[in-house]
Amino acid sequence: MAKLSNKISDTVIRRMPVYHRYLEDLINRGINRVSSQELSELTGFTASQIRQDFNNFGGFGQQGYGYNTYELKSQIDLILGVDKSYNTILVGAGRLGSAIARYIGFSKSGFNIKALFDVKNLPNLEGIPVLPMDKLKSFIIENKIQIAIITVPKSQAEKVGKDLIDAGIKGIWNFAPFDLKAPKDVVVENIRLNDSLLILSYYMKNIDK
Amino acid sequence: MAKLSNKISDTVIRRMPVYHRYLEDLINRGINRVSSQELSELTGFTASQIRQDFNNFGGFGQQGYGYNTYELKSQIDLILGVDKSYNTILVGAGRLGSAIARYIGFSKSGFNIKALFDVKNLPNLEGIPVLPMDKLKSFIIENKIQIAIITVPKSQAEKVGKDLIDAGIKGIWNFAPFDLKAPKDVVVENIRLNDSLLILSYYMKNIDK
Repeated sequence: MAKLSNKISDTVIRRMPVYHRYLEDLINRGINRVSSQELSELTGFTASQIRQDFNNFGGFGQQGYGYNTYELKSQIDLILGVDKSYNTILVGAGRLGSAIARYIGFSKSGFNIKALFDVKNLPNLEGIPVLPMDKLKSFIIENKIQIAIITVPKSQAEKVGKDLIDAGIKGIWNFAPFDLKAPKDVVVENIRLNDSLLILSYYMKNIDK
Repeated sequence: MAKLSNKISDTVIRRMPVYHRYLEDLINRGINRVSSQELSELTGFTASQIRQDFNNFGGFGQQGYGYNTYELKSQIDLILGVDKSYNTILVGAGRLGSAIARYIGFSKSGFNIKALFDVKNLPNLEGIPVLPMDKLKSFIIENKIQIAIITVPKSQAEKVGKDLIDAGIKGIWNFAPFDLKAPKDVVVENIRLNDSLLILSYYMKNIDK
């Protein structure tokens, strides 16, 4: 199974966490073997799509056997880079921001939050300092921060994003309802809470009828 | 501009909140006219894609003029059903859950949260009662609750989802890392925080190289 070009499409990448989630479940249930057909029933993707996705990364199945869940999950872990860790900050330590900071703390991810930043003077959050905005740039540089989480209101998002990128941030998890204009070597991953609510609203309205 | 079939693809629907967001910005800046080309530069979608999207819903542009921002936004508001309101509950009133409940309260959306539910005995959240799980089904039925937000841990998500659907919930905003098996007349919209983190991780790793 030949490796295709290095350029894997974003659509394929976005299915990887889904495989990751189901493989974790299978492993937790003590299941050590799974076919692409069974993965298809779980995930809703077609079996041929699944085989093709894994082939993109060099393919790790055996004809007639399927996939070893442990092996497949550890390959996907490697692909997704879950073994890596990153110095992380969060900007906007309000209610959503603190909930997200705690979520990250619990998630055993490699995103280690070193500080929170806020326009308000707030107490430490479970041992993590909340620093004023005028310390943002120097903190990023001095502490080799690679990732920033943006949970500020929309009105502040543009300036915060620019400051983060100027200070050398390489990845942004953005919760602000705002499209960050970032250079190509800066990764931006958005969570669009309000867009998602509007979509729920659309489908509700069309069920109503 | 003829209306196409009633079946609008999910991909088109998911672009609607993006138009909504940019039109709101334009209106806030006092701009009352926009071309598909200008919308293309803002959103990153092609101009022909944009015209086609709007044609799906009957089309509201004028050749050579473009779109009136106020009119277009109010049409999109109608499409998305932002004029509607829904009785809503939230299950799982922990840190993420309370942040989401407050977020909804601030967002002036039509999702009116009537109660929160939790396995723990928690104080009211800004006037909204936190009720025990054994009141879930009766509360939904007695208060004609249509929408539920799930912010419980993964281990409880399957049972909670089943209980909600059994009690007649018609829409679910699901934050649990779990694929809810819902009948066709129940809308499920997922926010996948952990999947999003894994995707950020993947792209960071591939920038690292």
